[in-house]
Amino acid sequence: MAERFTVTYFVRAADQAEAKARALDIALEQTVEIPRSVVPKGYVEDEILGRLEDMQNDPEGRAGYLATISYSEDDVGGDFLQFLNIVFGNSSIKPGLKVEDIGLSPGLLALCKGPRHGIAGLRARAGIGEEPLLMSAIKPVGLPTVALARLARDFALGGMHYVKDDHGLVDQKPAPFGERLKACVEAVGEANAKSGGRTSFVPNITGPATAIIERARQAQECGAGGVMLAPALAGYDVVRALAADPDFTLPIVSHPAFSGANVVSPDCGFSHRTFYGTLHRLMGADAVIYPNFGGRFGFTREECLSIAAACAVNMGGRKAIVPAPGGGMTVARVPEMRDAYGNDVMYLIGGALLQESRLTDACRRLVAAVHA
Amino acid sequence: MAERFTVTYFVRAADQAEAKARALDIALEQTVEIPRSVVPKGYVEDEILGRLEDMQNDPEGRAGYLATISYSEDDVGGDFLQFLNIVFGNSSIKPGLKVEDIGLSPGLLALCKGPRHGIAGLRARAGIGEEPLLMSAIKPVGLPTVALARLARDFALGGMHYVKDDHGLVDQKPAPFGERLKACVEAVGEANAKSGGRTSFVPNITGPATAIIERARQAQECGAGGVMLAPALAGYDVVRALAADPDFTLPIVSHPAFSGANVVSPDCGFSHRTFYGTLHRLMGADAVIYPNFGGRFGFTREECLSIAAACAVNMGGRKAIVPAPGGGMTVARVPEMRDAYGNDVMYLIGGALLQESRLTDACRRLVAAVHA
Repeated sequence: MAERFTVTYFVRAADQAEAKARALDIALEQTVEIPRSVVPKGYVEDEILGRLEDMQNDPEGRAGYLATISYSEDDVGGDFLQFLNIVFGNSSIKPGLKVEDIGLSPGLLALCKGPRHGIAGLRARAGIGEEPLLMSAIKPVGLPTVALARLARDFALGGMHYVKDDHGLVDQKPAPFGERLKACVEAVGEANAKSGGRTSFVPNITGPATAIIERARQAQECGAGGVMLAPALAGYDVVRALAADPDFTLPIVSHPAFSGANVVSPDCGFSHRTFYGTLHRLMGADAVIYPNFGGRFGFTREECLSIAAACAVNMGGRKAIVPAPGGGMTVARVPEMRDAYGNDVMYLIGGALLQESRLTDACRRLVAAVHA
Repeated sequence: MAERFTVTYFVRAADQAEAKARALDIALEQTVEIPRSVVPKGYVEDEILGRLEDMQNDPEGRAGYLATISYSEDDVGGDFLQFLNIVFGNSSIKPGLKVEDIGLSPGLLALCKGPRHGIAGLRARAGIGEEPLLMSAIKPVGLPTVALARLARDFALGGMHYVKDDHGLVDQKPAPFGERLKACVEAVGEANAKSGGRTSFVPNITGPATAIIERARQAQECGAGGVMLAPALAGYDVVRALAADPDFTLPIVSHPAFSGANVVSPDCGFSHRTFYGTLHRLMGADAVIYPNFGGRFGFTREECLSIAAACAVNMGGRKAIVPAPGGGMTVARVPEMRDAYGNDVMYLIGGALLQESRLTDACRRLVAAVHA
């Protein structure tokens, strides 16, 4: 028999009998997808069919139960997307089900080597110790390359460790991908030469399916210090493929664009910690961007801290990654964020800095506040 | 000035003033993602910034309004994922927003050539006129190749037009992708030779990011009659890339695995018609699988018919595609489905047929019922 991994689902139900029926339905739906009466005896029934391992009252007091189902590594077939499909493929379409937690197994850990760099690698590249990291973004879309490169330079002079593309920058005419990449890498390099800093430029490589891997290689050849992509748009196996590619060595930053429906409803999708924490770390993202509490989005402090915890919790020796909360952050909120996250965090602040008349000075004040 | 496309959002709000504030926030969030006060004058403000074009009371009586925002084709940059990012990238993370409809523009239609075959091409391949199509699936995962190929043969002998892999079949040991593909294409070919039918085998090519395109080519070379993949797992640009590839000529069937959170909550994601209809047709899927009303899932009859309508409505000359409702369908429900969908539908029935002792006979009864 192969090893089994587990998925714990919140199952909305009026009583335990209904919850059990729904849980047994998940076990069928996610594996054999045929009526229980015709599941073939032997290997399919004994190994492939999901197994209800545990039922609990919901500790959070929601109107339902927690059901833990185990699945065979044989069903995964060495395929990360099939792993996700087993976790929640068809059941994602049934309201009142939510993936709360995933219990990993040796075969899953062998399939998912996790991040190449993690938070330690991102700090080493930035030349800092166990302090918070800082990242900002050049924007908006529509500015010409020269203006974006000037922003990249100013962020670097101001002491940001990573300067990324806005996630809406792809290959638009005012700043085509290759031209922008080259100009920003050069601008950041000149700033580093002047300041003695070690800022990295991180282009957005989310793009046509046939171009993403090529843009990642181009970024590496051009001297970028990382790449960013949005898994919910580009596909959930692209980060894993890049992180496992022996010829690709840059850190990977994940952006949450288009992922919202997977977490914001209490009635479907994933818990915040599992989606932005566990899954992104398994994929091999080194930094995971998500909306911080108290900004323009609705995540709670507890949800954000659960993501940060999942980025660092023991996971079969996989490296810890860095939570990168953003979305309307300001310098004034640094003390509150420090109090919440401690040092193992990447401050992602963009728009607020761009409101300041002297960008480099504004960055320096931010860096000072973070390191205070 | 470039042409503009529009997105109509349902915006949950207590009153029109709140809805307008939220809508203006979407217009910023989805384009420039910086505070309104620092949006650069000229091209960025005049062209790139989203524009609130219309606000209406919600015709469905929900607690909110419909806001229509226009966006510039310049912002898309010829990139389908950036189009999706503009439509709902960051705003997907804000509860109480739902994409209701998308108003296309010439540049979007130029970017998205749509399906190569559509429902007419799928019928031509099956050798039928304007009748309903029938599709079934070989399963479960865990069966050896020989058993799956036998099922494919029996489905073909029974008169199903398309026989697809279960979406959980990838490259597992009991039935590796290449071996299964070859055996099923052969089994279906032998059945066709015997029956005079024209059944096509459709393998599931959802898989590692670095293997999907290769598996699509392998399917074509091996004589498959289509490919199936799950865009919500594999990424939303893969279907478009395949449909636009001059060297790839097979029909593409889309599977809804992992897409549920994008539609099931009333408080986030997309309307059913936009997600499974408009977007899949833009991508270039020829058939779109979704859960039928009255089966194991919770879609309503109206939601399902709105998908079917979006598959066929006039869309800048793009071919009509076929809705493929499935998920617990039975022969007994054929009259109800015929009443709902008419002839422009692909009946997807799998598990119910597998419960019958003589599969080929069960298929023939289904075909007779559909064509009655």
